[in-house]
Amino acid sequence: MEVVGICGSDVHYLVNGRIGPFIVEKPMIIGHEASGTVVKCGKNVKNLKPGDRVAIEPGVPCRLCHLCKSGNYHLCGDLFFCATPPDDGNLSRFYCHDADFCHKLPDNLNLEEGAIMEPLSVGVHACKKAGVKIGDVVLILGAGPIGLVTLLAAKAMGASKICITDILDIKLEMAKKLGADHAIKIEKHLSEDEIVKKVVTLLGEEPNASFDCTGVESCVRIALRSTAKAGKVVLVGLGKFEMNLPLTSALIKEVDIRGVFRYNNDYPTAIEMVRSGRINVKPLITHHYRLEETLQAFETAKTQKGNPVKILIHANPNWRPS
Amino acid sequence: MEVVGICGSDVHYLVNGRIGPFIVEKPMIIGHEASGTVVKCGKNVKNLKPGDRVAIEPGVPCRLCHLCKSGNYHLCGDLFFCATPPDDGNLSRFYCHDADFCHKLPDNLNLEEGAIMEPLSVGVHACKKAGVKIGDVVLILGAGPIGLVTLLAAKAMGASKICITDILDIKLEMAKKLGADHAIKIEKHLSEDEIVKKVVTLLGEEPNASFDCTGVESCVRIALRSTAKAGKVVLVGLGKFEMNLPLTSALIKEVDIRGVFRYNNDYPTAIEMVRSGRINVKPLITHHYRLEETLQAFETAKTQKGNPVKILIHANPNWRPS
Amino acid sequence: MEVVGICGSDVHYLVNGRIGPFIVEKPMIIGHEASGTVVKCGKNVKNLKPGDRVAIEPGVPCRLCHLCKSGNYHLCGDLFFCATPPDDGNLSRFYCHDADFCHKLPDNLNLEEGAIMEPLSVGVHACKKAGVKIGDVVLILGAGPIGLVTLLAAKAMGASKICITDILDIKLEMAKKLGADHAIKIEKHLSEDEIVKKVVTLLGEEPNASFDCTGVESCVRIALRSTAKAGKVVLVGLGKFEMNLPLTSALIKEVDIRGVFRYNNDYPTAIEMVRSGRINVKPLITHHYRLEETLQAFETAKTQKGNPVKILIHANPNWRPS
Amino acid sequence: MEVVGICGSDVHYLVNGRIGPFIVEKPMIIGHEASGTVVKCGKNVKNLKPGDRVAIEPGVPCRLCHLCKSGNYHLCGDLFFCATPPDDGNLSRFYCHDADFCHKLPDNLNLEEGAIMEPLSVGVHACKKAGVKIGDVVLILGAGPIGLVTLLAAKAMGASKICITDILDIKLEMAKKLGADHAIKIEKHLSEDEIVKKVVTLLGEEPNASFDCTGVESCVRIALRSTAKAGKVVLVGLGKFEMNLPLTSALIKEVDIRGVFRYNNDYPTAIEMVRSGRINVKPLITHHYRLEETLQAFETAKTQKGNPVKILIHANPNWRPS
Repeated sequence: MEVVGICGSDVHYLVNGRIGPFIVEKPMIIGHEASGTVVKCGKNVKNLKPGDRVAIEPGVPCRLCHLCKSGNYHLCGDLFFCATPPDDGNLSRFYCHDADFCHKLPDNLNLEEGAIMEPLSVGVHACKKAGVKIGDVVLILGAGPIGLVTLLAAKAMGASKICITDILDIKLEMAKKLGADHAIKIEKHLSEDEIVKKVVTLLGEEPNASFDCTGVESCVRIALRSTAKAGKVVLVGLGKFEMNLPLTSALIKEVDIRGVFRYNNDYPTAIEMVRSGRINVKPLITHHYRLEETLQAFETAKTQKGNPVKILIHANPNWRPS
Repeated sequence: MEVVGICGSDVHYLVNGRIGPFIVEKPMIIGHEASGTVVKCGKNVKNLKPGDRVAIEPGVPCRLCHLCKSGNYHLCGDLFFCATPPDDGNLSRFYCHDADFCHKLPDNLNLEEGAIMEPLSVGVHACKKAGVKIGDVVLILGAGPIGLVTLLAAKAMGASKICITDILDIKLEMAKKLGADHAIKIEKHLSEDEIVKKVVTLLGEEPNASFDCTGVESCVRIALRSTAKAGKVVLVGLGKFEMNLPLTSALIKEVDIRGVFRYNNDYPTAIEMVRSGRINVKPLITHHYRLEETLQAFETAKTQKGNPVKILIHANPNWRPS
Repeated sequence: MEVVGICGSDVHYLVNGRIGPFIVEKPMIIGHEASGTVVKCGKNVKNLKPGDRVAIEPGVPCRLCHLCKSGNYHLCGDLFFCATPPDDGNLSRFYCHDADFCHKLPDNLNLEEGAIMEPLSVGVHACKKAGVKIGDVVLILGAGPIGLVTLLAAKAMGASKICITDILDIKLEMAKKLGADHAIKIEKHLSEDEIVKKVVTLLGEEPNASFDCTGVESCVRIALRSTAKAGKVVLVGLGKFEMNLPLTSALIKEVDIRGVFRYNNDYPTAIEMVRSGRINVKPLITHHYRLEETLQAFETAKTQKGNPVKILIHANPNWRPS
Repeated sequence: MEVVGICGSDVHYLVNGRIGPFIVEKPMIIGHEASGTVVKCGKNVKNLKPGDRVAIEPGVPCRLCHLCKSGNYHLCGDLFFCATPPDDGNLSRFYCHDADFCHKLPDNLNLEEGAIMEPLSVGVHACKKAGVKIGDVVLILGAGPIGLVTLLAAKAMGASKICITDILDIKLEMAKKLGADHAIKIEKHLSEDEIVKKVVTLLGEEPNASFDCTGVESCVRIALRSTAKAGKVVLVGLGKFEMNLPLTSALIKEVDIRGVFRYNNDYPTAIEMVRSGRINVKPLITHHYRLEETLQAFETAKTQKGNPVKILIHANPNWRPS
């Protein structure tokens, strides 16, 4: 193993011991945003050889069910997934994974970028779900890591104008640095009507693709109300189970509401986005720790001290900070 | 004009004077589920000639905007629509309509069936939105007129098993007569969990396409919770604006939630479904009135006395009850 | 093993020893249109149990490549396929196959129908490729077994009018019996122009989906020239490698030309078509032989004596002619 | 009128008097790649005002037929199209056109780029037909104007590697300048097998989208043979009516063969590609003439002296060479 990023879900498992139906019932190795270097291959492996640097797609499906056979392997009911209980993750020195879910990195991607391919794949999947194409007008609710990778993916896929929202200035600044055209700071005194109006005013029109990357009811509401006729609302963030929503406002516009569950055949697209120079994920990487410093890394993730975006843990003992 | 059906929206305008943003501010002719016989054509009309019997698609778009040009004419912002204020409807002796929105009836469809093409097109549009195909397992919430046309369209498009729900036995009986495989009577004592479980038990699996035809929060909830991974929930009924919903339960299954706004290029499909004998809409027609009896017709619609499904008003003075 | 049908490709391998790049270089067991009864299951098999009657989908892919993962397993470059050299087929008493490619038969399908699911899946796949839906106007070139299963699938999926062609009256009669609306006997004296005109005249309009089930250049030409704007031409039959074609006539109409390579997630649809009574495949079954009579069966297939459509070989020694 | 480009079809009409079924039977004004400045608007026009600079989409459909209503207006059987007989084009001082087919230019596009939006829309349409997306591997046959706009559109839509072919070095150099990764000079001594092999070797894999922009049989053959499984071959160039083709080689890979007829809702995408800086069309513009120099412009187009790519005629008498 080389580089493993910390995800919000990792912190959640550490702090709360569960995410919805997934409960940590015995010690579990964490880590699923990872890159590695191949040290050994099974005898039937053809796509890799020792020395290859890879991004590791953490879910391995059954390959047998109708979901697997029809191109929806990410929804497989019998999926192994790193660091989703009861499956161990890969924050370790050595780790064994199915070769076809290890994606060889092009020469111009480093191992840190390799680890970022996991969250970026979420953004890619979300944008594919919305069918983002050249000229699309996009609204993104939330400028956390998932909001930012969605922003990057949307730009790479052709969005012409992107408006992003958050409650923190520092996150909006990062979003602007990464290419957001407009940023709205959500403040207590702003009513829902005012925010919807502001979105449309800033963009000059209603967005035809909106992404909620917060899981917060008030954000989902804004997405549903802002989106243009025949548009898409993609809900990337999972929040509280019950939400009070103005569903009708979306439905009469035939706005489709789509969920995102991880990713599916999206790693190659994510890797290509970076390889081709369409996007740059390096600004997302804000903190580095050694494997031995994992507790500190999680402390930073929990406290958000130093405004981390992506915190990386280096599993390779030979790693030196640059 | 020949035959005009009464729709729930007509009653709504009569009783409440408005539906959402559409307010009746001056006297308005009602009627939009209609068939007629052509008496005269404009000089450029090529698709019709006097004597032709037609089903009248009540919405005529601007033909100029990007929605019209991209095949979404039903979402046009400048749509004329019969009996949606301020546009008059066609419950009258004579009426003039754009020829390309008058669909010639095949010989084996009568004018009463012609009037039913309007609600059937809603069912067709809903089923196209869900992509119903051979082998699909379908749940329909609500066995009113829209639930029933959705049932008919789903069967014609290949649904293998259909479960329908309602609060009234008489409606469920009609649904079974029209081809529902399973019927669930929604009763006060049944919890949401129990209903979801019953749906899955009766169908033998989770439905991959669910249609809410009630607009009632509790029904939308059941649709979201019952539907299978990668399935579709189509919301045909518009109900109260705000709903408390377990959205997450659908999203993590990547169930798409889609709205339906009337129909779009669906009349030809609806007509063909009946022409080919795939479905029979005659059982939907329960009541007949003359134009002079319009008030009585609406009285029946309001009181639901005699358990009407579709109430037809005959605008042609030569009509005789058969 | 229970029932194994004879396919044109089986005869081809027997007579010519090859089909294109596939060459029989050592003795090969033939048979790939098959049904069986499960006698034993591997310990991880969950979808089947001994005694289950199954239709056997003869191709098993690698499950690892990008084609497999994206829902195109039939195009996998590392596919095992019964009776395509060098892989043995299943015309034998006992045969072992991956459980997930054994499709359990519903109670109302018998084992003979189970064997027909293989060719029917070709028809289903072809019709899915063309996107056949309610109201489609269809042209089928060739009324051999593949033409007939395409006809059945097209009807089940909603075709409103079907015109079929062949050079033999007896085949056209079978096609009419199975539901073709119009039949054209291709005769030497008819020019291409005349046939194209006849197709359009009989159907009353240009077909929006055309299927070549012959592999013959003159038929492909008619498909390309007859099909309506924005329509589809699906080439199901593979014929000679080089063809002289009026491609432009299709292209300026934006007619898509699509190939069909076997099937992909189509068995469940084929089985459901028969289970639901949408189609009846029994008339396709014209000849029966015991396993010991395999040579005679192939003799009939070769000579076409008795005008066979589908010739079945019964591998179960307990089989008795009904 | 401001700027009008010369298209190969214009030259064809001038020299041969016809293109396929379209015959020049009376004097016809030429010109359909055009930009203009609005001088006057009809009273119902809302999208434009005098002074607006526009790119003129030259085809105006009937707006009434099923093709128009379903988003295929470009296939309308009753289409007016500039400079396709018998319709006059717009190479003139003043010209009147439907406002909804005049696309307002963003501030950062000049009127010369506005005229280029017409051929670029062909490239956009071709790439949409192929569904070009991030990571696609593309082969383009022919580096004339249409090959080059297809190249630009493919890059903007995400192609990761593009190989282009031509018989002239100078055209290949232009293609490389515009972003082609690999160029193959087609020379007499190269066999079809050698070219196919070279394409795959240079790209490192088979292209998943191939575009023929020549209309030449040998190029279509290479496209059919080179393209990867489940890929697309899009035929943009129309050449001779009859072609001898190895269709089977494409079909068994389930390669779809798609035609392109002009464009459809593609101007906004073309304009956005340039506005956003994704592509630069200025290098395509090689020659400028005044309206009075039209004959010279066509002489250059005919003789190809000076290796023209796009020749523009300036209809505005105030134009001055920059």
